[in-house]
Amino acid sequence: MKQEFFNLEIKTNGQKLYEITDQTIKWIEKHNFKTGILNLSIQHTSASLIVQENADPNVQQDLINYFNKLVPMDNKLYIHTSEGKDDMPAHIKSALTNNQISLSVKDSRILLGIWQGIYLFEHRLHSTKRTIVHHFIGE
Amino acid sequence: MKQEFFNLEIKTNGQKLYEITDQTIKWIEKHNFKTGILNLSIQHTSASLIVQENADPNVQQDLINYFNKLVPMDNKLYIHTSEGKDDMPAHIKSALTNNQISLSVKDSRILLGIWQGIYLFEHRLHSTKRTIVHHFIGE
Amino acid sequence: MKQEFFNLEIKTNGQKLYEITDQTIKWIEKHNFKTGILNLSIQHTSASLIVQENADPNVQQDLINYFNKLVPMDNKLYIHTSEGKDDMPAHIKSALTNNQISLSVKDSRILLGIWQGIYLFEHRLHSTKRTIVHHFIGE
Repeated sequence: MKQEFFNLEIKTNGQKLYEITDQTIKWIEKHNFKTGILNLSIQHTSASLIVQENADPNVQQDLINYFNKLVPMDNKLYIHTSEGKDDMPAHIKSALTNNQISLSVKDSRILLGIWQGIYLFEHRLHSTKRTIVHHFIGE
Repeated sequence: MKQEFFNLEIKTNGQKLYEITDQTIKWIEKHNFKTGILNLSIQHTSASLIVQENADPNVQQDLINYFNKLVPMDNKLYIHTSEGKDDMPAHIKSALTNNQISLSVKDSRILLGIWQGIYLFEHRLHSTKRTIVHHFIGE
Repeated sequence: MKQEFFNLEIKTNGQKLYEITDQTIKWIEKHNFKTGILNLSIQHTSASLIVQENADPNVQQDLINYFNKLVPMDNKLYIHTSEGKDDMPAHIKSALTNNQISLSVKDSRILLGIWQGIYLFEHRLHSTKRTIVHHFIGE
């Protein structure tokens, strides 16, 4: 049994879906992993990790718009306002989505659907740096 | 260490929760898996995989109703409308729930609570085919 | 390859985030697990397992308030009302969050961000007992 780790660092620049699929695949190919589980976990609670459609970029814009409407950036709605109007909504969006995904790897390929990509979903407004732990366990 | 894969194909017929627990258990028994992780991942971003109550079927109807109210099928709300009024809401519902679950298996049994079942949650209105990857890693 | 299981039992006392990080870490240290995946799954569908901020407790209160507003405890909205006004909302909140998390363990440490804690998020109003399965696979 093989286990490897890698911290992918992403500099984000506001609310957007940042695709990481290619970087994740490159790491698998580099280590020649064959079959196993790839556990991804984001080390923050104001950004998410999601698998979403990679075809029409409007889907990503609609996701951002929807979540901004669902979780308004309005300080009057929250007690925790000291880190800015976007911080508490970011924590809520994180709870509504995921901060961890386990992907299956077979024959050195991540088993994703043809229209699926892996995304860091940034919920904060300002520029920041995010760490996504990659952990492979298998052969 | 043992690893096996299986694609469960489900023909869906509109918005509903389709229970897959029995088919998943059958696959585990067929291969005589003892102890390990069963990683399930749906290969689509307009349907979800969830663990939910298997007792009162009204719970499932309430879930469908609630998600339809939370994410309205109204083209005016979205940019991505080319695939039908139910497509963008389906992507959002997918982001709000899960497209992957890791289940623990011990003594050939999936460790689920007594009232828990595994469901494919279909968000599209028309009939379609869904693939759920089953991946076992363990002994 | 090593595999171990442990059922963490938590007595809850109403809607709150109950931190379990310390108990989970203690179990890892007790067994001297080095590197692997720790799969946590809650055996109920009316409470959640989430990774959230462990710094400002107001974040936890805001999460509770937000989810109560998003999923009103109003029997008129649901068909499944036989188990109390908080039961169907609890199932919905469970679907909107997570009932399972896979955590990466390296050098006997859970790879969590500095502000991340592991929480049982209780959605029911009355006092109850919850079981969180801990399953380690690795070395």
